[in-house]
Amino acid sequence: MGSRGNGGGGDRTATTSNGGAAVVDNGVDFANYFCTYAFLYHQKEMLSDRVRMDCYYNAIFKNKHHFLGKTVLDVGTGSGILAIWSAQAGARKVYAVEATKMYEHARELVKANNLEHVVDVIGGSMEDVTLPEKVDVIISEWMGYFLLRESMFDSVIYARDRWLKPTGVMYPSHARMWVAPVRSRLVDQKMNDYEGAMDDWFSFVNETKTYYGVDMSVLTKPFTEEQRKYYLQTSQWNNLHPEQVIGTAAIVKEIDCLTATVSDVLDVRANVSSSIVEENTRLCGFGGWFDVHFRGRDEDQTKHEIELSTAPSADYGTHWGQQVFLFYPPVRASKGDKLNVSFAMDRSKENHRLLEVEFGCEITQSSGGLPPPMKKKFYIE
Amino acid sequence: MGSRGNGGGGDRTATTSNGGAAVVDNGVDFANYFCTYAFLYHQKEMLSDRVRMDCYYNAIFKNKHHFLGKTVLDVGTGSGILAIWSAQAGARKVYAVEATKMYEHARELVKANNLEHVVDVIGGSMEDVTLPEKVDVIISEWMGYFLLRESMFDSVIYARDRWLKPTGVMYPSHARMWVAPVRSRLVDQKMNDYEGAMDDWFSFVNETKTYYGVDMSVLTKPFTEEQRKYYLQTSQWNNLHPEQVIGTAAIVKEIDCLTATVSDVLDVRANVSSSIVEENTRLCGFGGWFDVHFRGRDEDQTKHEIELSTAPSADYGTHWGQQVFLFYPPVRASKGDKLNVSFAMDRSKENHRLLEVEFGCEITQSSGGLPPPMKKKFYIE
Repeated sequence: MGSRGNGGGGDRTATTSNGGAAVVDNGVDFANYFCTYAFLYHQKEMLSDRVRMDCYYNAIFKNKHHFLGKTVLDVGTGSGILAIWSAQAGARKVYAVEATKMYEHARELVKANNLEHVVDVIGGSMEDVTLPEKVDVIISEWMGYFLLRESMFDSVIYARDRWLKPTGVMYPSHARMWVAPVRSRLVDQKMNDYEGAMDDWFSFVNETKTYYGVDMSVLTKPFTEEQRKYYLQTSQWNNLHPEQVIGTAAIVKEIDCLTATVSDVLDVRANVSSSIVEENTRLCGFGGWFDVHFRGRDEDQTKHEIELSTAPSADYGTHWGQQVFLFYPPVRASKGDKLNVSFAMDRSKENHRLLEVEFGCEITQSSGGLPPPMKKKFYIE
Repeated sequence: MGSRGNGGGGDRTATTSNGGAAVVDNGVDFANYFCTYAFLYHQKEMLSDRVRMDCYYNAIFKNKHHFLGKTVLDVGTGSGILAIWSAQAGARKVYAVEATKMYEHARELVKANNLEHVVDVIGGSMEDVTLPEKVDVIISEWMGYFLLRESMFDSVIYARDRWLKPTGVMYPSHARMWVAPVRSRLVDQKMNDYEGAMDDWFSFVNETKTYYGVDMSVLTKPFTEEQRKYYLQTSQWNNLHPEQVIGTAAIVKEIDCLTATVSDVLDVRANVSSSIVEENTRLCGFGGWFDVHFRGRDEDQTKHEIELSTAPSADYGTHWGQQVFLFYPPVRASKGDKLNVSFAMDRSKENHRLLEVEFGCEITQSSGGLPPPMKKKFYIE
């Protein structure tokens, strides 16, 4: 970690929230983002996600017509799994691109599975490598928490625009982002942690003044902001139980992977409705998750449509979990209450791979009551 | 995090283990190293370390003659605490340099303590800033785990060579690195964790072959190396109890802060002896720690010499703890056994702020027996 970036020598351009080009230092991007993917332990975590594995496996093997004798590009191949499956499903040629040193392991894995005559593992950034030809299929597992964290889809779009044949298909073909009102004890935990940190701070300020003659009280305001951001304003990874979803879920974004532009995913804006379905409950905030679909394209559909969903599930949780956006304080809610929810998501200025989200919520109670509207900004770190 | 580095626009040169110059990308250095220091929570942790605070406080206020009417440079001022104390001890002028955004808070703190006429807070890297004059005192809290982790002393040396008057003093003036044989249950914990990770791996390889038709066994070797490095070859932070030190401690490095060069701290080599003092015990490895002293210089000594020690202590633990280097398997040892210990420390090639250590150990048992010698490489991450 800390080495100069992978792939190409120079800096790359990434797209910022206002559509401008920001120079992304490859080395910094590596230190901040790519480096985790160089670890086998991390790859194994993703390879051990049975829901993820089953969906991609079935998407490929139940739709061999898309692979048999065709050319495939795997964007961000990691260990090489999708490239290997594509080859096993009969692809003529598979280009497997990986920006981290993991590509060396992918190459070994391809060889150990006797597929080196089909699969070319290429080390480098998608934006920097050159393929010998365009491809029939682009397959990629690019989804981050709540779909867009990590902003890897930019690289898939780039690959598609440059390397996919006009008749080519995307695997997955579609993606959707969902939100729903939730309850969660995290709201109490985090408030507890925050209050503990603040209590500790005030003791600290006292002691520093008493024993060391320095008045640190001027730092209380920035310290408070820092702790509020960390404990109360940062979305939480969680594996929600379906029981914790207390109202109807709504789609805040739909993506057609064949036609989406970076502009389309730069910012997400939606106004959605939700009804509370649980009696006498606590609206603690919103859960966010995604699903992706493997449908092919209109003129060349999959025979078996596959859905990979990361919705709250008792038995089919994934390593993505959900992102939980908590409101302080939580509010009482009742079955029949109607929510008007505004949703806005942008990339962080400091790091285009991180996100900022704003939730607004107006409640019309089933009793007719109109509590004050809520609005809050969150950080997806 | 992820923003282009602080201080200056270009890259800096850092010194590698073989004495060569390596270009350090400021942005990468920030993403990997500096960024933690921009958080008030982290500053508070260090400011809450009573041993650290007491030692620096006493070093300054019991030696006011070094500060009264003098000019001072605080290298890496963080929150500004040392600069503020220096001013309170009567300094005429204090330059407080800080590379992260924390400098803004330091500036506020100086103002809130009515010292802005004395303390100039300067935001930037020590290597990049210009002071209006040379100084009588350089004060800095630069010590990382086991003294040299973070390699911050390079910046103190740079500051000294450029900004310290020929008659100036260094606070601290001296530093020492110590090692001693130790016992620790960590050795069982980490081996457990490692074995658990490996058991899990083999199940994973089986399942991936059974359910997904891909043979991952070729990755067993690199996975094993990765887990061994993580669980068994990386030094552990720990707050050792003195009872866990089972033999005499020895100094592996002594530094005179007034005269040390980067070359002197680039690599550390020592051969030391130790005697086991505990009856019928388990030699699990070595603990490493440091102390620093405030003695002034020969021609201008402190009136009260202060020592800041991070040796294992029941009551005076510090946030530095100790670094524990564990051997697998641990070996039986008895009171009177003699150890011949070789110690070698170098900077990591990938990241000059991290370290690699090699311990060699030959035991001559009190019974006269000569078990096979041990040698092992460790990573200080």
